[in-house]
Amino acid sequence: MTPMRRPLIAAATLTLALVSATSSYAADVDKAIEYRQDALGVIGWQIGPLGDMAQGKIDYDAEEFARRAENLAAAAPLPWEGFIESSLRGDGHGIDTAALADIADDWADFESRQQALIEETATLAELAQGDDVTAMRRQVAAVADTCKGCHDNYKAE
Amino acid sequence: MTPMRRPLIAAATLTLALVSATSSYAADVDKAIEYRQDALGVIGWQIGPLGDMAQGKIDYDAEEFARRAENLAAAAPLPWEGFIESSLRGDGHGIDTAALADIADDWADFESRQQALIEETATLAELAQGDDVTAMRRQVAAVADTCKGCHDNYKAE
Repeated sequence: MTPMRRPLIAAATLTLALVSATSSYAADVDKAIEYRQDALGVIGWQIGPLGDMAQGKIDYDAEEFARRAENLAAAAPLPWEGFIESSLRGDGHGIDTAALADIADDWADFESRQQALIEETATLAELAQGDDVTAMRRQVAAVADTCKGCHDNYKAE
Repeated sequence: MTPMRRPLIAAATLTLALVSATSSYAADVDKAIEYRQDALGVIGWQIGPLGDMAQGKIDYDAEEFARRAENLAAAAPLPWEGFIESSLRGDGHGIDTAALADIADDWADFESRQQALIEETATLAELAQGDDVTAMRRQVAAVADTCKGCHDNYKAE
């Protein structure tokens, strides 16, 4: 039995422990939300120029394209651990977030969308090592579609 | 000669172009600052449990340690492109940031510190594939030292 699991004798001690546990949990939720927003921000930053190159808004630069595609694939698995219990809109977390409680209601779908992003970005990073620019462009669109699909379903306006 | 470099004839057009260029540049600076803070936030999140495991505050979990070490190594090269011109404290960017203008004054040192973090985290990710927990712990300390060194020199209190 760990010290944390010993029955607490004094009611005052119990109350204090509960208050302390609650505020620490709230802090964890806030940190998790901030973390996932950070990680999604990194993804947004990295995909920006890839989208611009794919759409011809800026010139294609093979080196930059490959570097950003690699960064994007590295960042794709990161945000999801931040979607913890009580950190969703309408889920009683008490702070502002665009992430809807539908995520918790359909976690299997949310996870399959995470996996799709991880796979599509890995494919993009692989293509970026070659020279088939048409395929790269198409793959940027595939990645953007996975972003959009998740936002459409799980992100508040 | 690109269109952007053609002399502008009408003064009104010139003024408009300057205003437009300035506000878009300010937006770029704000976005770059936000991006680097996002990327550094990801690094902080990933290193947290590694530090806790290294210091025995939480139990060592080989799988989690290896996953976070890999995430950390993947994130280590990311923040630095956000340290753009006019985005430092005392550098006329006009928004709040803890990044000191000393970064621009000693860019070579700042770059060598970035490189140190990239290398130390790569070493940690490699060690995390093995089973020498003492070496892993020591390497977490080495990584934390590179963070601290940069913060001590280039981050406002």
